[in-house]
Amino acid sequence: MDAVEIARRAQQARSAVARCTSEEKNAVLLSVADMLDAQRERILAANACDLEGAAQSSAQTAFLDRLRVTQERIDGMIEGVRQVISLPDPCARTPQAHVLASGITCVRQPVPFGVILMIYESRPNVTVDAAVLGIKSGNVMILRGGKESLATNRALRDCLAAALEQHHLPTDIVQLVEDTDRQRVQELIRLRRYIDLVIPRGSAALIRTVVENSTVPVIETGSGICHMYIDSSAEWETAIALALNAKVQRPSVCNAMETLLVHAFWQPRIGDLLQPLADAGVEIRGDEKICRCFPAAHPATEEDWGTEYNDLILSVAFVPDEEAAISHIQQYGTRHSECIVATDRQAVERFMQEVDAAVIYANASTRFTDGFEFGLGAEIGISTQKMHVRGPMGLEALTTYEYRMFGDGQIRS
Amino acid sequence: MDAVEIARRAQQARSAVARCTSEEKNAVLLSVADMLDAQRERILAANACDLEGAAQSSAQTAFLDRLRVTQERIDGMIEGVRQVISLPDPCARTPQAHVLASGITCVRQPVPFGVILMIYESRPNVTVDAAVLGIKSGNVMILRGGKESLATNRALRDCLAAALEQHHLPTDIVQLVEDTDRQRVQELIRLRRYIDLVIPRGSAALIRTVVENSTVPVIETGSGICHMYIDSSAEWETAIALALNAKVQRPSVCNAMETLLVHAFWQPRIGDLLQPLADAGVEIRGDEKICRCFPAAHPATEEDWGTEYNDLILSVAFVPDEEAAISHIQQYGTRHSECIVATDRQAVERFMQEVDAAVIYANASTRFTDGFEFGLGAEIGISTQKMHVRGPMGLEALTTYEYRMFGDGQIRS
Repeated sequence: MDAVEIARRAQQARSAVARCTSEEKNAVLLSVADMLDAQRERILAANACDLEGAAQSSAQTAFLDRLRVTQERIDGMIEGVRQVISLPDPCARTPQAHVLASGITCVRQPVPFGVILMIYESRPNVTVDAAVLGIKSGNVMILRGGKESLATNRALRDCLAAALEQHHLPTDIVQLVEDTDRQRVQELIRLRRYIDLVIPRGSAALIRTVVENSTVPVIETGSGICHMYIDSSAEWETAIALALNAKVQRPSVCNAMETLLVHAFWQPRIGDLLQPLADAGVEIRGDEKICRCFPAAHPATEEDWGTEYNDLILSVAFVPDEEAAISHIQQYGTRHSECIVATDRQAVERFMQEVDAAVIYANASTRFTDGFEFGLGAEIGISTQKMHVRGPMGLEALTTYEYRMFGDGQIRS
Repeated sequence: MDAVEIARRAQQARSAVARCTSEEKNAVLLSVADMLDAQRERILAANACDLEGAAQSSAQTAFLDRLRVTQERIDGMIEGVRQVISLPDPCARTPQAHVLASGITCVRQPVPFGVILMIYESRPNVTVDAAVLGIKSGNVMILRGGKESLATNRALRDCLAAALEQHHLPTDIVQLVEDTDRQRVQELIRLRRYIDLVIPRGSAALIRTVVENSTVPVIETGSGICHMYIDSSAEWETAIALALNAKVQRPSVCNAMETLLVHAFWQPRIGDLLQPLADAGVEIRGDEKICRCFPAAHPATEEDWGTEYNDLILSVAFVPDEEAAISHIQQYGTRHSECIVATDRQAVERFMQEVDAAVIYANASTRFTDGFEFGLGAEIGISTQKMHVRGPMGLEALTTYEYRMFGDGQIRS
């Protein structure tokens, strides 16, 4: 099926899902959970094919791990669906009407975004997450997963289609783009007339390709070169605990710390901070001063400051003052999550004011940048852009609004 | 100055304006108003040069009218500045903090968008409007006006620069792109790293160029193929008055009606509706049935249904039912403003639910799609897209938010 056909079918399914009541949508999601449960063997068999294909092309362990589906991961998908069922419908409420000077009654009504294209890699649970969040918020989804997980994604799509059919809804509410041709993606992201939003999730290269070529509005996700700045006023033990958590607790995700900036005040005690990190297996890449004070450190290159390692590697530098830290973050940050450890209120305030990022922490780990931790109950990705939504994206990110104006014959003079 | 240099200077000015208090920003705006008043002769002289240049290239009357600055229009600019001074600062409030499950206190803080590029044509007052709304909301503006108004825009920019200097603020807070080379615009809209937002205002061609080539996030404005659907349940006299107002009261703007869809029920009385329009100078372009019932109508072509006339021309068609009207709007609308005239509540509800547009009216003129009518106190344009802002854009559209997270050592487990 060509790109225009996929997009056209998605547009045609829009009204069927937008018209569903909250109860109807929850009933569909309940069926999705049931279908996933009933189809476990089929899903695992499809996944086995994908894993075999990947192993043959000598994929790395981490890659295979992201691709793998297990009984527990299916449990996780089902639990995720149940959680979304329990969330409030973001479009169900009718907001306060207010009367304009003209006498017209104005209601700013939340509505589904429309047709959303999601482009992602590897992890098959994204297929379920995205479809389920899409249905809950009244949208139509076009899903384009990685080609390495095609068989698994087909099996998951079949569960979703069966649930929709059971409730007499068009299966085009969730389409899977099965064509692995890259050209198809390039075409889809230019169909501004048919597709309302595109969300890329995956490698920096994928995100860059979409951002640079899409005429469909994009939400840029995920790229996280997160910094922690330890001020001279920091509570030192807290700083050490936070640094360890932000780097080591789960290094492969976007909200893990990649660069540690330490006020020169702490130079005599730098070993207290860096040794525990080294002991936890972190490779320290330091500036000149760091390397002199902590010989186990490797010298950092210019490239290192702008690298998202997603691994047990950490860039570390001393800074003369807060301003230098802010300057560094301004230059190398990706506007994801930035942290200051300080007890000085003015230092915290200045950091909050001057740093430009989706999430700014004072005295807490950057690892909290997460839809569930934020109380959204769901997460479709983490936006690093400024438009429409910033930080963790839940159901509300998949909605827009319309002005509904009720008059009794008002004309403009 | 090349594009990167302009953008870089804008970035450097960001923090100076973002740090200003509401009082400081209002003081700058007061100086802007004073400067405009003091520089009237200089502005008019510059405008005279632009007008002469335009007249020599045989510009049309409407074009010259958009370009012309008069004492009254300067009064209008000054009054506009005073109005913005009286508006609340969109970033001044500190919203409700709430405590997350982790114990971290979370504040979703409104902040200025950052660096905003505005690309517009002809009307020099946009230079002042955009700069003033930008400053009020704490942003840095890069303004690229039409080359036909370059001398006028320079004179206006000088007023803005003088006001900023008077308050010891960098004049790079408002930059005018003086280079008339189109290439410069093409380069600026690819500088996603330095420029946070681009707003194009002007011809459909300008907007399309920006939307298709920009990697900087865009707010698509203005294109308005607005429809009015007269239902069988309409109050007939109201329908006639609304149709007249929506087409004739100010035909050249984006919220004027371009297509009238009439339920076949009204066929015997179609003259009541179309004659007043024809008498007001409107050229009716009708479908086959309209032309048979109203011989003064010209036959409409396929192209007419998708044309924004911005003139006293109106496309008219009969529809068999509401569904056909909604279908037509879905196909030809630009998601700007759409109207139903009906007394039947279910018909109104269905229209509201099914039509996809920024503003949907029941029984009021589409001419009310305007920032001032909406109570925003200002208008930087009308968004026809779904992302970030929809419909009339006021100060809030020029802001985004940051999550500010206050912890006391929380780590993620």
